[in-house]
Amino acid sequence: MTTSATSLRLHGFFRSSASWRVRIALALKGLAAEQIAHHLRRGEQRAESYLRLNPQGLVPALEIGDATVLTQSLAICEYLDETHPEPALLPGNAVARAHIRAFAQVIACEIHPLQNLKILLRLRKHGSDEEAVQGWARDVITEGFTACTALLPTAATPFCFGATPTLADLCLVPQMANARRFGVDLTAFPRLLAIEAACMALPAFAATAPELQPDAE
Amino acid sequence: MTTSATSLRLHGFFRSSASWRVRIALALKGLAAEQIAHHLRRGEQRAESYLRLNPQGLVPALEIGDATVLTQSLAICEYLDETHPEPALLPGNAVARAHIRAFAQVIACEIHPLQNLKILLRLRKHGSDEEAVQGWARDVITEGFTACTALLPTAATPFCFGATPTLADLCLVPQMANARRFGVDLTAFPRLLAIEAACMALPAFAATAPELQPDAE
Repeated sequence: MTTSATSLRLHGFFRSSASWRVRIALALKGLAAEQIAHHLRRGEQRAESYLRLNPQGLVPALEIGDATVLTQSLAICEYLDETHPEPALLPGNAVARAHIRAFAQVIACEIHPLQNLKILLRLRKHGSDEEAVQGWARDVITEGFTACTALLPTAATPFCFGATPTLADLCLVPQMANARRFGVDLTAFPRLLAIEAACMALPAFAATAPELQPDAE
Repeated sequence: MTTSATSLRLHGFFRSSASWRVRIALALKGLAAEQIAHHLRRGEQRAESYLRLNPQGLVPALEIGDATVLTQSLAICEYLDETHPEPALLPGNAVARAHIRAFAQVIACEIHPLQNLKILLRLRKHGSDEEAVQGWARDVITEGFTACTALLPTAATPFCFGATPTLADLCLVPQMANARRFGVDLTAFPRLLAIEAACMALPAFAATAPELQPDAE
């Protein structure tokens, strides 16, 4: 089954790295989507009208027509890859795909959830001061990027896993932007920086960057 | 490509809920795997011999022969589903699969990483006392299960998404066990309890339970 590009509506926020993942996937697939911004710091994702669409009140969410709403960025990217197979976000055989998914999941399950807005607010509620909160985020990202580096193939390729960007790259690049926001020392990760540079040379990554979105501040 | 069952070696820990996910997937597929236990509280996952296999020092990891090691529980489950399609962990069309993956990712990306051993140690390091740490875990799980419930189809089925267990169920059941360990009030989630009961009536879930593993304490 395929979805006509014009019926796609992406609910996101310019600075949400999970939203950026989906923007990249859409762009790589050549799919246009109407963007609807929900300002996370202002709590717009908890407006009643949005909760009717996505009861969890999170971004991103992708409306694909006939009242179907997809949530969770990686599930959305896998859906786009299944319905629009070219270019493949998960190329290769089952082992190659498992390695790509594992890299993406280090970011989506081990880094991002431990440094997103929600957990930082929770930490402050638990009594951590601003310096401790920022240090927590830096530690989590540094540890996670060390893991990411260890998961890359021995022979360096332009992108994480080969000559084309995959699900791994579309998780990595937004996480690099988050890392900079928290002041992580990225010189410790030269290979990740090289991959990021290769990605940002592509319009699918460059044109979807947070600062270029209509809701950017 | 297929993998002969006898060559599978699962590195795990009886109480690790991510390891339990993979044990269920293997059992549903009818695949035997040698189990190698790494005691997380004793730090055995950081032994040099294990780090050579999985530099991240986490469980689970699945050795599939010819020096290939797969990490990240959901990536491993997707690999098993691609190489052994029956019974399907992700049945249905692309939309159905996206809903199953989203449910699994609420648990894998939003609940589990915020209540696992690693983050609880980090919280204690940041000055939280035991009561605060346990309360944090309960809050995270309660909030996550509320999201999970909202993602279930309107018409209740025996399992999360239909008449057979999927990737969603194999994430839910181990997370329910974690919830009990932290004293979460599960009576607030009758539908999740009913799904758990349906799952635990199946040998693939019951026989892989933590307390029945060789390394259980």
